[in-house]
Amino acid sequence: MPSEIELVREMLATARTNTTEEQSIEEMRAGMIASTAPMQPSEKVALGAGELGGVRAQTLTPETVDGDRTLLYFHGGGYVLGAPETHTGMVSHIAEAMRATTWSMDYRLAPEDPFPAAIEDGVAAYAALLETGVSPDKIIIGGDSAGGGTSVGTALKARDDGLPMPAGLALLSPWVNLACDGWSYTARAEADPMVTDAGIKRMAGIYLNGADAMHPYASPVHADLTDLPPMLIQVGPDELLLSDSVTLAERAGAGQVGVTLEIWPQMFHVFQALYPFMSDSRKAIARIGEWAAERTG
Amino acid sequence: MPSEIELVREMLATARTNTTEEQSIEEMRAGMIASTAPMQPSEKVALGAGELGGVRAQTLTPETVDGDRTLLYFHGGGYVLGAPETHTGMVSHIAEAMRATTWSMDYRLAPEDPFPAAIEDGVAAYAALLETGVSPDKIIIGGDSAGGGTSVGTALKARDDGLPMPAGLALLSPWVNLACDGWSYTARAEADPMVTDAGIKRMAGIYLNGADAMHPYASPVHADLTDLPPMLIQVGPDELLLSDSVTLAERAGAGQVGVTLEIWPQMFHVFQALYPFMSDSRKAIARIGEWAAERTG
Repeated sequence: MPSEIELVREMLATARTNTTEEQSIEEMRAGMIASTAPMQPSEKVALGAGELGGVRAQTLTPETVDGDRTLLYFHGGGYVLGAPETHTGMVSHIAEAMRATTWSMDYRLAPEDPFPAAIEDGVAAYAALLETGVSPDKIIIGGDSAGGGTSVGTALKARDDGLPMPAGLALLSPWVNLACDGWSYTARAEADPMVTDAGIKRMAGIYLNGADAMHPYASPVHADLTDLPPMLIQVGPDELLLSDSVTLAERAGAGQVGVTLEIWPQMFHVFQALYPFMSDSRKAIARIGEWAAERTG
Repeated sequence: MPSEIELVREMLATARTNTTEEQSIEEMRAGMIASTAPMQPSEKVALGAGELGGVRAQTLTPETVDGDRTLLYFHGGGYVLGAPETHTGMVSHIAEAMRATTWSMDYRLAPEDPFPAAIEDGVAAYAALLETGVSPDKIIIGGDSAGGGTSVGTALKARDDGLPMPAGLALLSPWVNLACDGWSYTARAEADPMVTDAGIKRMAGIYLNGADAMHPYASPVHADLTDLPPMLIQVGPDELLLSDSVTLAERAGAGQVGVTLEIWPQMFHVFQALYPFMSDSRKAIARIGEWAAERTG
């Protein structure tokens, strides 16, 4: 009998034949909506609509919330695809595990709004959240893939703008090297069941739109990460972006940032999204909740 | 008023003037005994004497033990210094946090018994522990510094010898690169309050005694780490051995080993040993306990 992970990989192998390399942006966007549609949100989380700093948000409110604990979330999708609604399922389970009032941001995407629009929206949302009166030491900023990059970029710009730092950054397979030149981009090209080298480089080109891939808000692995809050980074060995996570962990740690890096065997890009099918996805989400509780008291 | 960490650094700066570079081996050994003597063991842990596989052990038995959970511990000291008794204080607190019956091994040291004597003793002890009937999925192997290297080397040789793997490896600032050529060996030479480049290279030379520094049991960063059990690695940014931990985490993770790497801001080599003085030392020890409980059910 095939294991959970074997079944999931078979499913993903079928999906991967629809490679992003040949599709139009509209086709890719529709594909992400279709592929995430079956992911049911937690029944214990109320969904709503909101706005922070001029940026539309989906709100996700668990039945049980620990005081003011708040998650500011940025979805993945290569800075080109996705919306809060494509990630409602996974984010609802993260919100529930964290027992946190959650704002999932509909930040601007490329090619309509290239770099640094996403980061500007991130900081606008964070500043507005602070203005609601929530203490920064109750706020976790988090995201997956490009949303992980947006999370770190937002924290960097917030620091540079003189805003207080949140309590932590929760990063799921963060994309933090827009030059796409880490060792795993080639070494994991065959192993990664979701992301292709050509596909991610296409996204980087669309997002950067000529901007420097080495800009710290675009590629936080090249940033001075000093004074950022503690980070939790979860990643799988079977993904192109493994080296992004390890390099970020090393550079953040060396910069006196508290780091917890978790590498989950056999897992792959944003494996937490497969929570209906894999127990490790659910365990990783539970770990995010525990870590966030430690960070926010 | 100076902070905990400032006071501890001042204390260490004084101690560091007795640099290992000019001392005889006997002077260094006496220095380690003297510097660890004030570290009081937990009153809730009973100390005793034992033996595993022909290797003398100190036994540490907490008042509360969770079933068969067992820690097989290897002390640090550059493969040249130390004994279970120099580490009784810290190990007693780790044993208490883990609620584990603990065997702290008096493995053979160089120059009297160079590489691979430490690893041979480690495997002999582990095999003997298995023969007592403890299930491998209740055993954590752990150690600090050279004892972290001994832990990984022991697990590697145990795997190669066909023994079942333990439930996990708990590694405190592990020394796993006997070539001493990671980036932090130079970049952290000033920042490290305890270990000097000349001092650690002297230890490597004494231990290897002409053996290849690239041997996987001496330098696990160069080993095939496949099939090793999950690892917890704790390290500080201000130590020569930071790159040992990050490289081990990356290579183990890439080899499908579960990895949790924690980088603790402002901390340094085996900072857990300063538990009487620093709350982060005590928090890190508590984290080891939580992690071990997750691994051993």
